[in-house]
Amino acid sequence: MSIQQTLEKILRKVKEGMHPSDLVDLVEELTGEQKIELFELLSDEKAALIIQEMEDFDQVSLLKLLTAHRASAILKEMAIDDAADLVGELPPEEARELLALIEEEAEEIRGLLKYPEDTAGGIMTTEFISLPEYIPVEEAIIRLREVAPDAETIYYVYIVDSRARLNGVLSLRDLIAAQDGIPLKEIMYHNVISVTTDMDQEDVARIVARYDLLAVPVVDEKSRLLGIITVDDILDVIEAEATEDIYRLAGAGEIETVGVTEAPAIDLARKRLPWLLICLFGGLLSGSVVGAFTVTLETIVVLAAFIPVIMDMGGNVATQSSTVFVRGLATGEIKGSDTRSYLGREIKVGLLMGLFNGAVIALAAYLWKGLPILGLVVGIAMFFTIVVAALIGTVVPIIFNYYGIDPALSAGPFVTTIKDVTGLLIYFYTASIFLKFLV
Amino acid sequence: MSIQQTLEKILRKVKEGMHPSDLVDLVEELTGEQKIELFELLSDEKAALIIQEMEDFDQVSLLKLLTAHRASAILKEMAIDDAADLVGELPPEEARELLALIEEEAEEIRGLLKYPEDTAGGIMTTEFISLPEYIPVEEAIIRLREVAPDAETIYYVYIVDSRARLNGVLSLRDLIAAQDGIPLKEIMYHNVISVTTDMDQEDVARIVARYDLLAVPVVDEKSRLLGIITVDDILDVIEAEATEDIYRLAGAGEIETVGVTEAPAIDLARKRLPWLLICLFGGLLSGSVVGAFTVTLETIVVLAAFIPVIMDMGGNVATQSSTVFVRGLATGEIKGSDTRSYLGREIKVGLLMGLFNGAVIALAAYLWKGLPILGLVVGIAMFFTIVVAALIGTVVPIIFNYYGIDPALSAGPFVTTIKDVTGLLIYFYTASIFLKFLV
Repeated sequence: MSIQQTLEKILRKVKEGMHPSDLVDLVEELTGEQKIELFELLSDEKAALIIQEMEDFDQVSLLKLLTAHRASAILKEMAIDDAADLVGELPPEEARELLALIEEEAEEIRGLLKYPEDTAGGIMTTEFISLPEYIPVEEAIIRLREVAPDAETIYYVYIVDSRARLNGVLSLRDLIAAQDGIPLKEIMYHNVISVTTDMDQEDVARIVARYDLLAVPVVDEKSRLLGIITVDDILDVIEAEATEDIYRLAGAGEIETVGVTEAPAIDLARKRLPWLLICLFGGLLSGSVVGAFTVTLETIVVLAAFIPVIMDMGGNVATQSSTVFVRGLATGEIKGSDTRSYLGREIKVGLLMGLFNGAVIALAAYLWKGLPILGLVVGIAMFFTIVVAALIGTVVPIIFNYYGIDPALSAGPFVTTIKDVTGLLIYFYTASIFLKFLV
Repeated sequence: MSIQQTLEKILRKVKEGMHPSDLVDLVEELTGEQKIELFELLSDEKAALIIQEMEDFDQVSLLKLLTAHRASAILKEMAIDDAADLVGELPPEEARELLALIEEEAEEIRGLLKYPEDTAGGIMTTEFISLPEYIPVEEAIIRLREVAPDAETIYYVYIVDSRARLNGVLSLRDLIAAQDGIPLKEIMYHNVISVTTDMDQEDVARIVARYDLLAVPVVDEKSRLLGIITVDDILDVIEAEATEDIYRLAGAGEIETVGVTEAPAIDLARKRLPWLLICLFGGLLSGSVVGAFTVTLETIVVLAAFIPVIMDMGGNVATQSSTVFVRGLATGEIKGSDTRSYLGREIKVGLLMGLFNGAVIALAAYLWKGLPILGLVVGIAMFFTIVVAALIGTVVPIIFNYYGIDPALSAGPFVTTIKDVTGLLIYFYTASIFLKFLV
């Protein structure tokens, strides 16, 4: 399909009411010039709907192609939280220039930009519906109909007092099921589940999931309603937080989601390098353990053949332990108070796995090299390595968590290094004890 | 607090309208007998609300404490999809017994149980609202008010024809914004985003997230509307699928979420063992590479000191590569068609990281052992090990994916073994080439 045809196809699809998320896929195929051409033909509103669905990275580069006047017109049509996120991604100079062009919304956007990106304040929108408690059901429905076009969701109505304090909530479901004439006060729920502006977005997501909410209100320290967070944004948070944890667990760095398919190789390599350097240092440290036992190794060089299996098994067990623990913390299934009993059981798991694998490797080593004592050495070392690895894989994340560092960060190079050093120490120390029987 | 007090506290909280999710936390503190006592005091409806929020494991054990008569009464009050999930967890004999006691819902539950657990059919509910296209707006709202108490969501109304085929959708938002008298046909959306019963739940989640839906309709091959999946269930799916991927990436087995805090140690050890045995076999295979170069190693035993760093670095790079790739596939950011260009860039990343780390380790090895040739050997080996590890970490998941096996399963022991064997081969082969300069 020629580029001109692609452009025509997109315009046809826009007319046919194609979902903006699908339009974005088509827009991505265009060159910069064609994008300008397309957006000149689109209304501000349509343009806003499409830009809202783009990745941050693409939003910014598209906006730079447009005139400041046009960009500001589109920004005005965007959902206020999406507009704030986009402005937040721009260089300060350009952000100021754009905000100067949109008077009305600029204040609100500046207000939202105050909050750190990954907090409730950073992901909330100010486009919610709040009503006073004294108005009756039928009036509430009329007001709802009026403000519906501008609200992020109309499925929850928040009831506030004269000082904007959040006092109750009503779902549209409750509202349409209620009889006319009754004031909202009498039918609203008083125990409103809310979050504060500084709450971590991961905790917000947990609350929305726990209580099956479609939106959660955000309040300040005086219980004043400042915004809401809708469930569609929570879906993105859960996905993004899982990705962050997965990357950290793997020691793969802090790669932004957009980076995976579009970032240049040098940027990706740079983000992964810090972890590799820690790993390199750790590997040398582990190597120095081997180096310290050169005499033992020179006496019986066959010991070297079991270095990989000791390292791999310790690595796998430590990774299993830290992963299960870190994920349990992230999903809220393991609470801070559970760690003691959790650790106790993890040691039991380690003992069981150590016994089994120790026996298997002892037999394998004996059969492979024909030396019963070697089997004993490798088996004993394997047992202790696995128990210690299970312990390290749990204790290191516990310590990280205690000091307020994301425990997922511990699982990569740190746990690897500690389990390697201890595993190899155990192995060579055991071997040196039995050395006299081996030569 | 005594047990009697806990019981009283729960009953008080039930009366005060505490959210069922919070009640579950309190119920969990009770013994079996106290749970019976509590549930005898609760209405079927309240009991159903509480049980719905429990983990599968706890639901089943609680149900076993109750009489079949009571259990069936509670089951009738549960949301139909939750009831079906619970029945599906029971032993077949008990499931039959319970279903025999509830006539009306039994048929629907059996219908839902036909579908595999992790498909759209397996997570959908049949409690949706569908209306014919010819009725006017005001009548639709009246009907909505009638059926609201039994529907899972009233925020989407699905428009079906006389053969139950899905023809359109209207949100409650559209409906209350529309003028009376207009038939639904004229205001409904025709391009309904729907899924089929056999679609994987992960793909369903991706669609709901992509289009910011509150619910998605499920249809059969003839476009007949069979059920809906609401966004609160999608939140759980996204979390569960991320956990599954994280476990698989870590080679930590298929531990059910409930297992993390409650399963006995022996069960956990058993689930983790298969991965460890593959890893053990892989470790021995890697060891045989070391074993094959015994002569080289005997000649210059200092080579053993760099085995850990070669293994660790290869491991970290391979884990990074497979993790970023597997996660990209899972979130839909990397599409099947992208793999070729993705692989190309990953090789570039590998080359960059290999060059840098090869240079660093060459210098470190030279400074540590005072042998320039040793630095050269370790540096060259590190370079190739990293490039190959990046390649393996991407190619193995690609192959798994191609054959329809979850690529996350490849990342643990398989990638580890392959990168260890190749890394050690590269290292010792390089060393044996330069051996004459080393001794």
